[in-house]
Amino acid sequence: MSKACNYAVKGIESNECLRRGNTYYKEGNTMDIINGGVTAAQGFMAADCAAGIKYEGRTDMAMVFSKEPCECAGTFTSNVVKAACVVWDKQIVDSGRKMHGVIVNSGIANACTGQEGFDACMATAKAAEEILGIPYDTIAVASTGVIGMQLPVNKLTEGVRKMAPALSESAEAGTAASRAIMTTDTVNKEIAVTFDIGGSKVTLGGMSKGSGMIHPNMCTMLAFLTTDVSIDKALMQKALSEVVKDTFNMISVDGDTSTNDTLLIMANGLAGNRKITEEGKEYDTFREALFHVCRTLAMKMAKDGEGASRLFTAKVVNAKSKDDARTLARSVISSNLSKAAIFGCDANFGRFLCAMGYSGVSFRQEDVELFFESKNGRLQVFKCGKPLDFDEEEALKILKADEITVFIDMHEGKEEAQAWGCDLTYDYVKINADYRS
Amino acid sequence: MSKACNYAVKGIESNECLRRGNTYYKEGNTMDIINGGVTAAQGFMAADCAAGIKYEGRTDMAMVFSKEPCECAGTFTSNVVKAACVVWDKQIVDSGRKMHGVIVNSGIANACTGQEGFDACMATAKAAEEILGIPYDTIAVASTGVIGMQLPVNKLTEGVRKMAPALSESAEAGTAASRAIMTTDTVNKEIAVTFDIGGSKVTLGGMSKGSGMIHPNMCTMLAFLTTDVSIDKALMQKALSEVVKDTFNMISVDGDTSTNDTLLIMANGLAGNRKITEEGKEYDTFREALFHVCRTLAMKMAKDGEGASRLFTAKVVNAKSKDDARTLARSVISSNLSKAAIFGCDANFGRFLCAMGYSGVSFRQEDVELFFESKNGRLQVFKCGKPLDFDEEEALKILKADEITVFIDMHEGKEEAQAWGCDLTYDYVKINADYRS
Repeated sequence: MSKACNYAVKGIESNECLRRGNTYYKEGNTMDIINGGVTAAQGFMAADCAAGIKYEGRTDMAMVFSKEPCECAGTFTSNVVKAACVVWDKQIVDSGRKMHGVIVNSGIANACTGQEGFDACMATAKAAEEILGIPYDTIAVASTGVIGMQLPVNKLTEGVRKMAPALSESAEAGTAASRAIMTTDTVNKEIAVTFDIGGSKVTLGGMSKGSGMIHPNMCTMLAFLTTDVSIDKALMQKALSEVVKDTFNMISVDGDTSTNDTLLIMANGLAGNRKITEEGKEYDTFREALFHVCRTLAMKMAKDGEGASRLFTAKVVNAKSKDDARTLARSVISSNLSKAAIFGCDANFGRFLCAMGYSGVSFRQEDVELFFESKNGRLQVFKCGKPLDFDEEEALKILKADEITVFIDMHEGKEEAQAWGCDLTYDYVKINADYRS
Repeated sequence: MSKACNYAVKGIESNECLRRGNTYYKEGNTMDIINGGVTAAQGFMAADCAAGIKYEGRTDMAMVFSKEPCECAGTFTSNVVKAACVVWDKQIVDSGRKMHGVIVNSGIANACTGQEGFDACMATAKAAEEILGIPYDTIAVASTGVIGMQLPVNKLTEGVRKMAPALSESAEAGTAASRAIMTTDTVNKEIAVTFDIGGSKVTLGGMSKGSGMIHPNMCTMLAFLTTDVSIDKALMQKALSEVVKDTFNMISVDGDTSTNDTLLIMANGLAGNRKITEEGKEYDTFREALFHVCRTLAMKMAKDGEGASRLFTAKVVNAKSKDDARTLARSVISSNLSKAAIFGCDANFGRFLCAMGYSGVSFRQEDVELFFESKNGRLQVFKCGKPLDFDEEEALKILKADEITVFIDMHEGKEEAQAWGCDLTYDYVKINADYRS
């Protein structure tokens, strides 16, 4: 494990570094990407089942569980209309209690459901208490799907009773869980990494789902992370809250901040490392792994946005402040007109400048340089306040790739940010014009 | 002219009153809706031509002109990336100079065009000076279309030279001008009203165009109003700035605030009324007519949003503050998911609650009542924090109308607002995926 590299790319990639094969190297640390997801870390089990909540012929409930009690941290939707399950989970995280697991259903969001919604959370957790012998108030619940419908409680509790005996530490069980929480997602999303903390091998894994009602404000989806690291709860929350700002909060599919956004992390300490109780090298290593895991899941969600055919990235460099950089990048990838142009492979760069202009950040358009980038090339289209006479054929070639980056140099400072979205397609409209049926 | 009525509808409609045929009555005033647009008021002329700026086989330049110099007022885009013509017009309005007219082109926005863009404004105004004998710095210019392309100056000045001799006070000339400024609009938008100020008959007319890159922030489109009223400039600006808040600023097509939004009003005083120099009954009468004209043009723009098949109105009543009411109403009609549900006639009311929840306004969902309304009926769907068991067939019947209202009672206060948008359709994506070609 040598001191392998300097940063491969300056600034914006400062949380990354050189990648060789599946191994990332940074300042003496390595991080290995391994197969698996929520069951990769020691002591975490998962199960899934077809509970018939809404969908037929597919699984729609998942459970993640650790016998060992876990320190937990979370970030939740900033929408004032919060789903019952969000209120439930936030209460557990804020209480300081340990967490044993989370039970998720896809199909019905349990939002705008009044007391009945809270009763459904309670019934779900109580069913887990009964069968697993752990206190109901250490079980998180999460829901995703239609807002304003009541959950069928009997199906939920029946689902818990099916899943509990089937809990498994296998990678397959984790993958099956990541499939069961999908709604309009077209692919399941999971990742796992290992890294070293003071000589102990630590594993961090996770799964998430999108793919509509996705807009940066706190986390904007469901994501569940599991790790065997031993870490102080407050430090884990700090790392999570920081990392979210540059990962899940930097994606947008449609500008709608959901009622249900939930990001939970559970740490059961089974890796046996000396507990991380203060900031320093070990905290940094953990935070870095967390960043990588969150960013990977976030990018997967953006790329699999409802109806999406392309991952659409905005990189802003040399902005006056980090907040400016984030705001500009998010505004660009959130603009319907920018997203439609990306769908149409149209080098209509004025739309990106327009979206920057109404973002709330002040700047001089004369300072801005704008480029299109993809695996097919790089092309500058705007400089010194006016359009460049670029080759439309060249632009089309670049924009036909399945991952497009708009690179924006503000020439005003040193801060950078990156945001991820997707194109706006016919399929987005189709999916959402008749979502409930 | 009798004291005809009390307000027909309370609160939200407080700027309106009883309508009989084409006449509005309010507190002793009448306002008649007449045929015509920008040439309805005395002394205003219009012309149009096919200058070949971008479109072939259609007109793409328009001119509105008054020999009599006009007091002018305006509101402009809040986008920090302002088109050259916006900067030009704002300078005239702010200078206190009189205005003689405006020259508009559709096809190219003259935004992000550097010094060349300002030169194009100057050349256009200079051409008008030469041929019409009025100072170039009393001529406003406006552009709409693709951002980041340079205007063909020769075609612009040639257009001015064609239009100046053809200026006409006819209603047809006004209508032709309203057609020439269209881009993706499917219908032209004009209106004219007459009303009485101290015994003098005053006329106010206008035209506007949408229909994409429309989002409430200052005015959000091009609109030009002409009137023969005699009024103090500062008072006219005050009336315009106030009225905009509840009219043009309450519409959204796609959440994108344009670089070019311009609302101009010119008043040449030819009606011969005693000049309005202070607030009072006469100012109120003018303001009321202005409100009606702006609201009508704004609603026409919303209904003709790019790809739109339905006018989608949100009425918020009993909110804590006027600002809250406006923010909530705008958030609902701006939400992609709400708009897609309206397109699909899907009574997915949770999306409206979700959009209210992330609007930034704080409220208790338990207080909210939500209804769908159209000419086909009225149906309550949400109350006391939970969904009502409504009839889906009934909901579908209501939602199939071409004008849908979501009525939201906050039960928190007494303030009300209304916002107008449209549905999100396949055609929106189609129009914007390949706008430039």
